[in-house]
Amino acid sequence: MYKLPRVLKSLAESFERLPGIGPKTAARLSFYLLSVPESFLVDFANSLTDLKKKVLRCQICFGVDEEDPCYICSDEKRNQNLICVVENPLDIIAIEKTGKFLGVYHVLGGVLNPLHHIGPDDLKISELLVRVEKRSKSGEEVEILLATNPTMEGEATALYIKKEIKNRIFDDSKLKLSRIGSGLPVGADLGYADEVTLSKALSGRGDF
Amino acid sequence: MYKLPRVLKSLAESFERLPGIGPKTAARLSFYLLSVPESFLVDFANSLTDLKKKVLRCQICFGVDEEDPCYICSDEKRNQNLICVVENPLDIIAIEKTGKFLGVYHVLGGVLNPLHHIGPDDLKISELLVRVEKRSKSGEEVEILLATNPTMEGEATALYIKKEIKNRIFDDSKLKLSRIGSGLPVGADLGYADEVTLSKALSGRGDF
Repeated sequence: MYKLPRVLKSLAESFERLPGIGPKTAARLSFYLLSVPESFLVDFANSLTDLKKKVLRCQICFGVDEEDPCYICSDEKRNQNLICVVENPLDIIAIEKTGKFLGVYHVLGGVLNPLHHIGPDDLKISELLVRVEKRSKSGEEVEILLATNPTMEGEATALYIKKEIKNRIFDDSKLKLSRIGSGLPVGADLGYADEVTLSKALSGRGDF
Repeated sequence: MYKLPRVLKSLAESFERLPGIGPKTAARLSFYLLSVPESFLVDFANSLTDLKKKVLRCQICFGVDEEDPCYICSDEKRNQNLICVVENPLDIIAIEKTGKFLGVYHVLGGVLNPLHHIGPDDLKISELLVRVEKRSKSGEEVEILLATNPTMEGEATALYIKKEIKNRIFDDSKLKLSRIGSGLPVGADLGYADEVTLSKALSGRGDF
């Protein structure tokens, strides 16, 4: 059996712990790094050690930023009464890239998943309820846009949150719940679409 | 546009420079690391900074090890007159895993590739020639197993090395050149094999 230098082995083990990276890719990446300039390795290492120190969780929306509260929550131009509920901070980036959303966010930190023992207490759901309650007491119109992924778990989580909000807020005349639109992605081919997506596209048809 | 914390951005940029990792995967990996224990990040960072310090290039075979010469080149049980020429150190691992090779190695550090401006001087070819010349002067039987990949560039590199060795070694009665076997991989289906592989499998047929 080949005796790998220990540091190469431990580097490969670190890579292997990352999602989507198997043992072969991990070995390939580690060997690749033998050929890069030292300065690149130092920068990479510094980013890793600084990560937890310099990235804060916003205590309002649980997104990530260098400040707490984050720059979105503290932006006065944003509509604080339009809260988009997402699974994780990467979803915020995707939505922000569209430039079409001018409200604020709430990061759940995942979705309900009984198979992986993830229940409501593992997510930022109670924090969302408190936040919604507080905003709806102001008397202004409040909209909660549930933007969890259109997967089985994402749908279940959206339904659960809907139920919890309805249970909690007695006066829901000023509260609107919405779900992110589902249907054919742009550039798709009708003939190749799966039947669930197509059903959603049909039931969610819009005026033209 | 979403304002990403600088350290997350620089971490994603580091990941993005790795082969086979695009911007989306880089972002996903960086965000994933926000959720791992601090100790893992520290280990990962230490492996990166120690990499160049603790991994040495063997000055005989150009493989990697913690010592120079490497443990394979300094192993007296190995046949120093059977030299397997490979493209990179990862190939050594693959061959060592079989446990079937008891010679030594020579790492070229790549293959000839005119499109990427990689010529003979960029590879450890002259070092190989010196090594072969030295060994063949001992009067013993010497075998050079050319185990570059069976790709266009790998074949061209093997042919180039063959020609150079023939040019250099006048007395080649004790020198044997061989090429790693090409043919159908185990578990393959004849009907799906490409014609070049199948041709190689036919011309390289063995006794049964």
